[in-house]
This record gives sequence, C-alpha cells and structure tokens, in this order.
Amino acid sequence: MNRLIEKIKNEGRVLPGEVLKVDGFLNHLVDIELLEWIGNEFYERFRDEEVTKVMTLEASGIPPAVMTAYRFKVPLIFAKKAKSSNLGDQNLYVANVKSYTYSNEFAVTVVRDFISKDDKVLIIDDFLAKGEATKGMLEICRQAGAQVAGIGICVEKGFQPGGKHLRDLGYHVESIAVVASMNDEGGIEFEDDYK
Amino acid sequence: MNRLIEKIKNEGRVLPGEVLKVDGFLNHLVDIELLEWIGNEFYERFRDEEVTKVMTLEASGIPPAVMTAYRFKVPLIFAKKAKSSNLGDQNLYVANVKSYTYSNEFAVTVVRDFISKDDKVLIIDDFLAKGEATKGMLEICRQAGAQVAGIGICVEKGFQPGGKHLRDLGYHVESIAVVASMNDEGGIEFEDDYK
Repeated sequence: MNRLIEKIKNEGRVLPGEVLKVDGFLNHLVDIELLEWIGNEFYERFRDEEVTKVMTLEASGIPPAVMTAYRFKVPLIFAKKAKSSNLGDQNLYVANVKSYTYSNEFAVTVVRDFISKDDKVLIIDDFLAKGEATKGMLEICRQAGAQVAGIGICVEKGFQPGGKHLRDLGYHVESIAVVASMNDEGGIEFEDDYK
Repeated sequence: MNRLIEKIKNEGRVLPGEVLKVDGFLNHLVDIELLEWIGNEFYERFRDEEVTKVMTLEASGIPPAVMTAYRFKVPLIFAKKAKSSNLGDQNLYVANVKSYTYSNEFAVTVVRDFISKDDKVLIIDDFLAKGEATKGMLEICRQAGAQVAGIGICVEKGFQPGGKHLRDLGYHVESIAVVASMNDEGGIEFEDDYK
C-alpha cells in the first residue's frame, strides 16, 4: 500500500487552481509515522546508488530529507534561500531559482566546504511541479563537481513539466505520489503505477 | 560524554561579536549521528512530560525537532515565518517576533486546526539567546490554550537573558550545550554542568 497516496486521498485538500494542501500531515503538521515510511521508501528506491549526502532546500523539504539521511546514515545538507541573486560571497555556491508560487526569484546557497566532487548527492523535496527548486540544487551540484545519485520527491504534479524534463535529462527520479490530475471541484487522480 | 559540546569544541567556529558558527554539523550541513544523539537526549530529559506534539520554527529548528518527534512518536509542527505582522487570516494563530540577527520583525504562524487545548507541546530549537523566537512559539501555545511540556534547546548562549527569563517564568528548559562565554580570539567556555 502506498501510504502517502492513501493519506492524500483521505486528508489532502484540493483547492481551485490545482493547489494541493498537505499541510495537515506533510509540510506544516508532520505525521511522524508517515515520515518514517517515506524515509524507508526513499531508502529502498535509492539504496544501490552509493549515496554520500542527502540535499534539500529549506524549509519544507527538511523533514523527509532528515528521515532519508537517517536511514542512509549519511549527512544532510539543507540549502539556504537568500534574497539577493548576486551575493558575491566567495565561500558560497549560488544558484538562482524562479518561484511560481510567490512570483519572484530567489537564490539557493550552499557553503563550498560542505559539498565536493567526491560526493554522490541524493536530492529530496516535498513537491515537484515545474522543477525550478530541483534545478537550483542540481546547479549547486554541478558547480561543486558532485555526482547526483538521484532525485526523490514526495508529491509530483505529473501534469506539470518538471518530472518529465528531469527524467529526459537522465536523472533517476522517484516520486512516491504522482498526481495525474486535479479539478476545481476537489477531485484528484493519481498515476496507477507510481514511479 | 556530551557529544554536542565535544563537537562544538572540535568543529565550531567562534567569530567576533559572540557569533558561534555550527553550520558544519547542526544548521546547514547536519551530522545525522549527532542529530540522533540529540533526539535521544531530549527524549530522556522530557520523557515524563506526556508530550503530545513537538513544535519548532522553520527552518534550522526542524532537524532536531524531527528527530525528537521521531523518538517520542508524536506529530511535529513547524511554525512558519511570515513577513507581515498583521496577516488577518482567521485560520491562523499569529505571534510577532523580533529578530536581532536580521534587525527586523517577523510573524510566526500556525494553522489553528493543528494545535488545541488538549495538546502538551514540547518546543525545540537549535539556538536560544534572547529568547524571542521561543516567546513567539509560547504565544502561539497560549492562544491555542495548549500546555507547554518544556523547551529543549541545542545551544544556549548562557550569557544572554533568554534562558534565565524562561526558567524564571517556570518553564522546564533543557539546553544540551550552554555557552558560558566567548571571546573575539575564538575562545569558548561551557557551563560545567549542562542543564
């Protein structure tokens, strides 16, 4: 049984404009047993990838990333969001990210000492839609010369282009729940074989 | 052995102006074994308090709060930061917090449905200095009519007034590492009997 899909069906709220609210169990109030299950799920799906670090972006990616890093017994790095796109700090890797949720742009930053070419990074996030935040983390890995072990997503909006784009680029993307469609009456459908 | 104090002594960096950098193991890159030890430590110190929820404030409080909630097997709630001090959303509890780090003010918000008078809340955070963020979370608990089980802090700046103020108010405060003093040459001292 896919416990995340069951939880979304039972307790998620679909709002007009293809908005899915999961703040009652995933990204504000967090169901710890569900989170443990999610961490195990990512572990099973990426266990052969020789992961050395788990990376996410603050703030709502942190809970699933902590539990995944805990299962892998590897360090977690959470990239920081900053206002300026041109921070000019020589100690940081910086990538610019468009936010469609807030209609602005922000910078993703990681201290250079904390990621290297010897790392194989598993990127974890709570949502994947257009994929902008993920692209920011991939850009940080590129700057550091680190390999990407894979990309693990809790909820992918399968009708948005982010997931397809990342898979077309050859990344190992695993989304626990892939939403096939939502409608303004609160209906939601998932892809049968979650990938 | 206090593993957090050992880690700070070995890998923390003291900068002029009483700034303690722990971003190599606690609040940017996160040492997962240390985090597990911290979660166990909070569990041991608050296990008799009948905790029903763990609360923290995004973003850097989330990793220790996740691991603590995991040990207690209770839900985690992470309060959100918002810009406006007057959000006017009837579905939210809102508390205003002064930030001395960034010289501004922000709002702490929690969805009303996610905390109630039946809760006994353990507040967890990575740092305690003047205690402003903690006071914001206490104010949210007060508005919800929830009891406070205690306040668990990774690193307390013991020379700042926050910890004493909270203890004087009668709260059960447990800080894993209490910094007694720092100097501009990089020196750091801890209170012997961490409390």
